[in-house]
Amino acid sequence: MVAKIAVVAGDGIGTEVVAQALKVLRVVLPGVETTDYDLGAARYNRTGEVLPDSVLDELRGHDAILLGAVGDPSVPPGVLERGLLLKLRFDFDQYVNLRPSRLWPGTTSPLAGVKPGEIDLVVVREGTEGLYVGAGGNLHPGTAAEVATEESLNTRHGVERVIRDAFARAAKRPRRKVTLVHKTNVLTHAGGLWARTFNAVKAEFPEIETEYQHVDAAAMFLVSNPQRYDVVVTDNLFGDILTDIAAAVTGGIGLAASGSINPERAFPSMFEPVHGSAPDIAGKGVADPSAAVLSTALLLDHLGHPEAAARVTEAVGAEVATRTPGSALSTDAIGDRLAAAVA
Amino acid sequence: MVAKIAVVAGDGIGTEVVAQALKVLRVVLPGVETTDYDLGAARYNRTGEVLPDSVLDELRGHDAILLGAVGDPSVPPGVLERGLLLKLRFDFDQYVNLRPSRLWPGTTSPLAGVKPGEIDLVVVREGTEGLYVGAGGNLHPGTAAEVATEESLNTRHGVERVIRDAFARAAKRPRRKVTLVHKTNVLTHAGGLWARTFNAVKAEFPEIETEYQHVDAAAMFLVSNPQRYDVVVTDNLFGDILTDIAAAVTGGIGLAASGSINPERAFPSMFEPVHGSAPDIAGKGVADPSAAVLSTALLLDHLGHPEAAARVTEAVGAEVATRTPGSALSTDAIGDRLAAAVA
Ligand SMILES: CC(C)[C@H](C(=O)O)[C@@H](O)C(=O)O
Ligand SMILES: CC(C)[C@H](C(=O)O)[C@@H](O)C(=O)O
Repeated sequence: MVAKIAVVAGDGIGTEVVAQALKVLRVVLPGVETTDYDLGAARYNRTGEVLPDSVLDELRGHDAILLGAVGDPSVPPGVLERGLLLKLRFDFDQYVNLRPSRLWPGTTSPLAGVKPGEIDLVVVREGTEGLYVGAGGNLHPGTAAEVATEESLNTRHGVERVIRDAFARAAKRPRRKVTLVHKTNVLTHAGGLWARTFNAVKAEFPEIETEYQHVDAAAMFLVSNPQRYDVVVTDNLFGDILTDIAAAVTGGIGLAASGSINPERAFPSMFEPVHGSAPDIAGKGVADPSAAVLSTALLLDHLGHPEAAARVTEAVGAEVATRTPGSALSTDAIGDRLAAAVA
Repeated sequence: MVAKIAVVAGDGIGTEVVAQALKVLRVVLPGVETTDYDLGAARYNRTGEVLPDSVLDELRGHDAILLGAVGDPSVPPGVLERGLLLKLRFDFDQYVNLRPSRLWPGTTSPLAGVKPGEIDLVVVREGTEGLYVGAGGNLHPGTAAEVATEESLNTRHGVERVIRDAFARAAKRPRRKVTLVHKTNVLTHAGGLWARTFNAVKAEFPEIETEYQHVDAAAMFLVSNPQRYDVVVTDNLFGDILTDIAAAVTGGIGLAASGSINPERAFPSMFEPVHGSAPDIAGKGVADPSAAVLSTALLLDHLGHPEAAARVTEAVGAEVATRTPGSALSTDAIGDRLAAAVA
């Protein structure tokens, strides 16, 4: 059996882009077994269910999850995020949230003078700790005396494994550089743990160049000099923000792929475009499926098919390079082109 | 007596830029009384002292504090930040951290096609709560079992007053729009408090347009469409990051001013350029004093001299507009020009 993939197409454009990703996947991985799971805003609105335990158990039996996008303005904030996306990241110990950003030939950066090929970075974002754990509460809610807390929890275990992953990835890249981003001058407790752990792991990788930056400085440099980054490792919340800036300077979330990865493969990893369900353009066949297809390349790489992954990534790059302003192909047509290109 | 200003020139280029700010201040506010305070990395390295209680008491007796920059690589992270900058913000209840960003004529945005005048936003960053309170700790430090925590503390009191301040500022601006930035879909406890409070205050300002954005989306839009923002209100940590992006897209921190303000004037407010002490260029007379001078304009406005503030701001804008690439004036020469311009 080649691979068992759980498919969560989700809401809005999620279903449209996942259909294209699957077209491509079936070409490069013939015999791949896929099972569809109906999860997201539509199911929640229909049944009140977010992620039943029985479904979680079934997902566990797969090699990976391919997710389109979930969400709709009709669902209160947090319900699907906490109940579905973060639940999967945490329950399946997907501690490496991998987000590559490249400025592809054919795309235009909003940054003046930055040329395709110049930006090629990957953010290794921690996925199972920090402020995302959901610890906190509200005292005297709704009164003038209300206090709300959020607690960031960080362990040596959690920090060390993701930093080690970042170094291992950097070792395989030509520039071999890792930037740690945190806010050690203010978040001294968590920052101290991150900085000490970074220094310990760094000693094991003497061939890798390293640097440290505060998150505010990194946010600025991602705009003024994104070329300087190779691998960036950071915590869950900082990674959320920095990867959106990285997506913005490489032309937007239309091409931003991500993987929520358990490197040991003890649990299924999850691959999804960074963009959301985009209800405003859903159903029109105009969504760009490239980010979903690039996420499928990350899936292939994770499952031990690096050549297939490279083929898919190159196909997307080549397709994007043929684009001319004002003549956008449909979602389906792009999928067809990519499927043909990888054949 | 016109005004008593405590001057903390600080380290590196801090002393150089503050000297220019004072030149300008003395012209527009004749008779202003200034007292120098020796605080920062140099004093810490010499004496081990960061902010003695007696100095804190003396500062309390002033109308405002003008700060250059403090810091040096020789000082461990957190010492001056927690012990001096944040201590002043917290002890003097400077809950409005005000950071305007404008793309001045004569400056170039790193963003292609964005023209001077198009970006004109102000971030109202909360200054006394959130993750900056320093709550947290390290359990089993230095061992494989280490746990590090950081706690974000938020009160209705603290959130409401800063949101109210943001609305009041928006009411005086031509576009009259306030954007709340948080991460309500993940930080549901604090995010809930911020969102509910925002909605309550908004009801009092029916003429103000409002919107909400998650911090990751806002970070992206600050790059792809910074023109859309007027007043942005957000928490302490998000504000730290977003204001550096706003500075980056308006040409860097050379022009980024800030005020840490107690609007009730129960305590002195503090005004400082966003840039640091920049040891690499210190002593060369090449630092751009504009951000320090613009911070002085914020000081003037806060102390009830809006015309003087406008004069200083316009002088900086006019000076910047005369700049030509490759022919930079010295720190001192820019200060002289600005002092002459406001005379
Ligand atoms: C939807 C949300 C929970 C999520 C996150 O904050 O991680 C998203 O912004 C992302 O980056 O994948
Ligand atoms: C130096 C540091 C404590 C400070 C902050 O994080 O607030 C700085 O980055 C700023 O933005 O004023």
